[in-house]
Amino acid sequence: MNSFGEIYRLTSFGESHGPAIGGIIDGMPAGIRIDLDKLRYQLQRRRPGQSTLVTSRNESDDVTLLSGLYNGYTTGTPIGFTIANADNHSSDYSTIEHTYRPSHADYTYSAKYGLRDHRGGGRSSARETASRVVAGALASQALDILGIKIYAYTSQVGDIVLPAHYTHYSPDEIDSNPVRCPDPEIAERMGALIKRVKSAGDTIGGVITGVIKGCPVGLGEPVFGKLHARLASAMMSINAAKGFDYGMGFNDCGCLGSEMIDQFVPGKYGKPHTLTNHSGGIQGGISNGEDIYFRVAFKPVATLLRDVSTVDDKGNETILHARGRHDPCVLPRAVPIVEAMAAMVMLDSWLINKTSHL
Amino acid sequence: MNSFGEIYRLTSFGESHGPAIGGIIDGMPAGIRIDLDKLRYQLQRRRPGQSTLVTSRNESDDVTLLSGLYNGYTTGTPIGFTIANADNHSSDYSTIEHTYRPSHADYTYSAKYGLRDHRGGGRSSARETASRVVAGALASQALDILGIKIYAYTSQVGDIVLPAHYTHYSPDEIDSNPVRCPDPEIAERMGALIKRVKSAGDTIGGVITGVIKGCPVGLGEPVFGKLHARLASAMMSINAAKGFDYGMGFNDCGCLGSEMIDQFVPGKYGKPHTLTNHSGGIQGGISNGEDIYFRVAFKPVATLLRDVSTVDDKGNETILHARGRHDPCVLPRAVPIVEAMAAMVMLDSWLINKTSHL
Amino acid sequence: MNSFGEIYRLTSFGESHGPAIGGIIDGMPAGIRIDLDKLRYQLQRRRPGQSTLVTSRNESDDVTLLSGLYNGYTTGTPIGFTIANADNHSSDYSTIEHTYRPSHADYTYSAKYGLRDHRGGGRSSARETASRVVAGALASQALDILGIKIYAYTSQVGDIVLPAHYTHYSPDEIDSNPVRCPDPEIAERMGALIKRVKSAGDTIGGVITGVIKGCPVGLGEPVFGKLHARLASAMMSINAAKGFDYGMGFNDCGCLGSEMIDQFVPGKYGKPHTLTNHSGGIQGGISNGEDIYFRVAFKPVATLLRDVSTVDDKGNETILHARGRHDPCVLPRAVPIVEAMAAMVMLDSWLINKTSHL
Amino acid sequence: MNSFGEIYRLTSFGESHGPAIGGIIDGMPAGIRIDLDKLRYQLQRRRPGQSTLVTSRNESDDVTLLSGLYNGYTTGTPIGFTIANADNHSSDYSTIEHTYRPSHADYTYSAKYGLRDHRGGGRSSARETASRVVAGALASQALDILGIKIYAYTSQVGDIVLPAHYTHYSPDEIDSNPVRCPDPEIAERMGALIKRVKSAGDTIGGVITGVIKGCPVGLGEPVFGKLHARLASAMMSINAAKGFDYGMGFNDCGCLGSEMIDQFVPGKYGKPHTLTNHSGGIQGGISNGEDIYFRVAFKPVATLLRDVSTVDDKGNETILHARGRHDPCVLPRAVPIVEAMAAMVMLDSWLINKTSHL
Repeated sequence: MNSFGEIYRLTSFGESHGPAIGGIIDGMPAGIRIDLDKLRYQLQRRRPGQSTLVTSRNESDDVTLLSGLYNGYTTGTPIGFTIANADNHSSDYSTIEHTYRPSHADYTYSAKYGLRDHRGGGRSSARETASRVVAGALASQALDILGIKIYAYTSQVGDIVLPAHYTHYSPDEIDSNPVRCPDPEIAERMGALIKRVKSAGDTIGGVITGVIKGCPVGLGEPVFGKLHARLASAMMSINAAKGFDYGMGFNDCGCLGSEMIDQFVPGKYGKPHTLTNHSGGIQGGISNGEDIYFRVAFKPVATLLRDVSTVDDKGNETILHARGRHDPCVLPRAVPIVEAMAAMVMLDSWLINKTSHL
Repeated sequence: MNSFGEIYRLTSFGESHGPAIGGIIDGMPAGIRIDLDKLRYQLQRRRPGQSTLVTSRNESDDVTLLSGLYNGYTTGTPIGFTIANADNHSSDYSTIEHTYRPSHADYTYSAKYGLRDHRGGGRSSARETASRVVAGALASQALDILGIKIYAYTSQVGDIVLPAHYTHYSPDEIDSNPVRCPDPEIAERMGALIKRVKSAGDTIGGVITGVIKGCPVGLGEPVFGKLHARLASAMMSINAAKGFDYGMGFNDCGCLGSEMIDQFVPGKYGKPHTLTNHSGGIQGGISNGEDIYFRVAFKPVATLLRDVSTVDDKGNETILHARGRHDPCVLPRAVPIVEAMAAMVMLDSWLINKTSHL
Repeated sequence: MNSFGEIYRLTSFGESHGPAIGGIIDGMPAGIRIDLDKLRYQLQRRRPGQSTLVTSRNESDDVTLLSGLYNGYTTGTPIGFTIANADNHSSDYSTIEHTYRPSHADYTYSAKYGLRDHRGGGRSSARETASRVVAGALASQALDILGIKIYAYTSQVGDIVLPAHYTHYSPDEIDSNPVRCPDPEIAERMGALIKRVKSAGDTIGGVITGVIKGCPVGLGEPVFGKLHARLASAMMSINAAKGFDYGMGFNDCGCLGSEMIDQFVPGKYGKPHTLTNHSGGIQGGISNGEDIYFRVAFKPVATLLRDVSTVDDKGNETILHARGRHDPCVLPRAVPIVEAMAAMVMLDSWLINKTSHL
Repeated sequence: MNSFGEIYRLTSFGESHGPAIGGIIDGMPAGIRIDLDKLRYQLQRRRPGQSTLVTSRNESDDVTLLSGLYNGYTTGTPIGFTIANADNHSSDYSTIEHTYRPSHADYTYSAKYGLRDHRGGGRSSARETASRVVAGALASQALDILGIKIYAYTSQVGDIVLPAHYTHYSPDEIDSNPVRCPDPEIAERMGALIKRVKSAGDTIGGVITGVIKGCPVGLGEPVFGKLHARLASAMMSINAAKGFDYGMGFNDCGCLGSEMIDQFVPGKYGKPHTLTNHSGGIQGGISNGEDIYFRVAFKPVATLLRDVSTVDDKGNETILHARGRHDPCVLPRAVPIVEAMAAMVMLDSWLINKTSHL
């Protein structure tokens, strides 16, 4: 249950305030040259403390790779890794040892397991996603060889929605601002909104858009292994995710068929190409060679820096005075996580597809 | 890849125009009394030809159970079953043997496998979902014993959207009309829209809402086995699904945290209860005992009864004259499929949760 | 739990006296031409009633393939199949409805599940292995393309042991006699022994040897997916199997290292070759290109045609008067099952190995 | 492929001469008090350098648990752990960087992956089994609560075979001598043989017997999840294992059915009990409540401290001058590994069996 993927498979471990988090990547193909700087760069993009828009928890998030590489190349054996938890202010959490924070996992973990490591949310903390970024960043280096490129960006914060389709934005602009929105002017408005919300002790949610380019025809499996079902499972496993759609999605699903079918025309190398792409690059669960694009909805962070009414583990009403360092908005830091999960799905799907033929 | 579930697991087989479709249900707990009439009733709800709003293909969809039951009780051994394909008009499909229907899986299956059974869409046909209804209906009989109730309904067709929250509608109204919408007046408008679209040779999409009541606290697993991630994967594996969200979802994810957190108050039997349920009954991926509710977006059916421009398998442009019998709108028949997939996820999650403790 | 394999995966269903047994084969690569006569031939080799050495139950064992093939080629979609149970003498089993046969699964199934289909042993009957022969025979047709050949033979019945190494026997001799022993003279002695034992109402066990030739270097995965561990799991899942060894096995494991290491010498195409093959074609869990050979021990059939003392399901002592039609020795009919399980492992391992590299 | 188990699942990583080995244990039930001293004790039993009969590599084998425990109890979340590799004499292995050691995995790993970490055997080193001992020792602490006890012992070294059935030996004697043989007199002869072989630069193999007591009725699943098939897979995944049998096994499988069936008689609490136990505690793949016992054959270590002829990675003949520190006989150190693998299988099977019923 702490593993993701069939062939390229991440198994992760770790709690927010234990000595370290980490994971094991199984199924990485052999012979791939790994650029550790690229890996570290992705971790820096997810790292807390990187801007004033995110939590001030200060983690260097240095990853230690313990196996699976030799002379800079993958060996085909599993890649074990750890990331130390350095800046633990566990005392910040003493107030919640016996109190259930609203809309957090405190109550559900306690009820399920009979006990929980309450410090920093324990296993339910988004700190775990650093392990996903490691697995995703390594998958990306394999996907680079295959010509598959993935990027994501913040497309909505609160009621500020990026108006145009992904095709109007350059991925090069995404990291030009701390919101990770490819329209600089809208990014500024989003950033201002996040700061305003933060100063009010409140939080805010939004939407991230993901794009996969260069995907060959044929990835995804019938009928339960549909490529978009695997992407949905991947995205919905990210902390705070509340929704996933792709292609026409929720917004255009009410249109007419005549408005939404993607006409085939002869394309390059004799392959069919579609004039439009309402399908989102996937037909019948299998990639058709067009761009894949999708959206992920993220809820506002549940920790408010205000007093909130709740119950304790004896069932009594109490007031929670939240402390700790928290993101007012998960979107900026979730962008590399969305990319990482997409990369894992794509490499895994690519490897599985190899078995469709002798 | 044709299996779904970890413990309670359906493996399905079959093409639209082969002799039969069917499946194997593994992991059904022993000692459950099976009511075959209830099973048949669910299949009738998915059956083609049940109303003027759906395809006129006429299948009795009688299921033959071949194993796993003895004297009316489950034995703990796998349940094999078949459903005959009777009303095959394969000749309707001769026109598409070498032509790729737009927004269908013809091209992607051909490209992936090098060949395809084109008749009726082959494996990509929604006919396969009859097997899911069998597995879901049997799961439901186990869930009945556990007090878990699942229902779904059509909440949007085209631009006609059911305005209120699921709590305003009675599940008893759902099957009172062929659209499967619990508001009779809106159902009538939806039905009229579907007929209008159908008579124009067009199709239309929409949204189904699903509800799970009586779910105990504790179902769902960290971190990749989150209950909503499993529901997302289940729903997105249904033909024509384009999106999934739950709780506040896409519509309210842009709200403030202070508007969206669910305050805990003391509930029955000393268990915490939430005053609101923006979380959708799941916190940290684990059920919290409140109602679970979610939405699934469905695209308009891709087969238009009009001439459409496309390409053939030689890469040449051609005109497709679609024939065959097709749904103008999948929503009415997808309702029992959504319920079936949800039932499979819930029983599986319930069984997995048993292993959390000795 | 009723599935075998990772990529090439059989899921089977069915009880001895239900309407049919069958299964679903997932993961068969697309584009393989299937010879149905070869498939039927393998089923005939396992069929009851084929000689005087085996049970007189008379099953034609015709298999009906329901999906996954089109115009004689595999399509990449799952292959569903059924085999009817025709010659059920369920009344033969009324005596064991409440009585536990010694060394059978009656008691353990009843205790595990709380109920059981007692007729013919229900799910625990070796009749289930017909489904394995289907999956194995289809896998063999893929392996033929890859140049991998598998055969097995009876190498011990009672205390009659085939004296020489597998290299001394021709696979062409195996089916020249009903014992399936490649030495005709010893086969005759084995056959006479089986008949003698049968006429005394007794049964007898022995050993089957399996051989895999033409396996390329590189199949098998570290560390839990070792090729021999997968073969062991496959063979031990066969009814009545009590032991598995490969290469030097139990008999020579007590030798010195200096007697058992396999010296490398330059082989064909610059590949290393070993002068001896005590390793059994597998080193470190991965095939090395030499022949793979292994043994499987089978116990004597537990059903004696004599009165035996036992207990009933109330815990009372009783006398069992066994009826029904039973094999006095499983070895002859188990030969094609051993081959089938080996074929499934080899094709699956070959497909998994494709994912070792981009 | 580097994971073992369905619910209680170990995923391991690490090479012999990397910075550390380790693993992640998923599926450990919550609320189990862990005694770290018992865990360390098991690691000491596997540790190199513990006696003159085993390799002189000196590893403290301290394990660092990084997650999954809180206040001494398991939390239900995954347990990540590392074990440092301290005493690496990688230079000992420079001679094999381009040379294939006979009957080792050097050639097969190189051929499969195109490259390998040659130092100390890399991933194919038995050093990886320390991770299994961690997972097994933790499983044992859960099994203790369930009353299931597991032990193993050396029952054959070279041609010295322990003559009597496991019932004649006390598990308390096993660790009274470095061979881990419960008969002190025979243990002394075995130890002398190992020393003699070692001083000749040679190695020797043998057999380990495993015993599982207190197993309840009902563990193991039809038909591919048979309890003995899972034990076989577990044991055959251990380095140097060449065979597995249980109950009557290879030695008695040639007997008559009348000699081998286990008569049921009324037992305690109204449960059937068998007068004999040739079945080895498992009938139809499911435990019957009697003792489970099995044997595992281990080959002689392949590294001889002599010059041996072999080939290099260019395909040329060469002489290998083996260096490094090696066990002359794996049996003594393999005893805790056999126990660990058995413990993992039993806990996993116990947890899976919980899902047989609502």
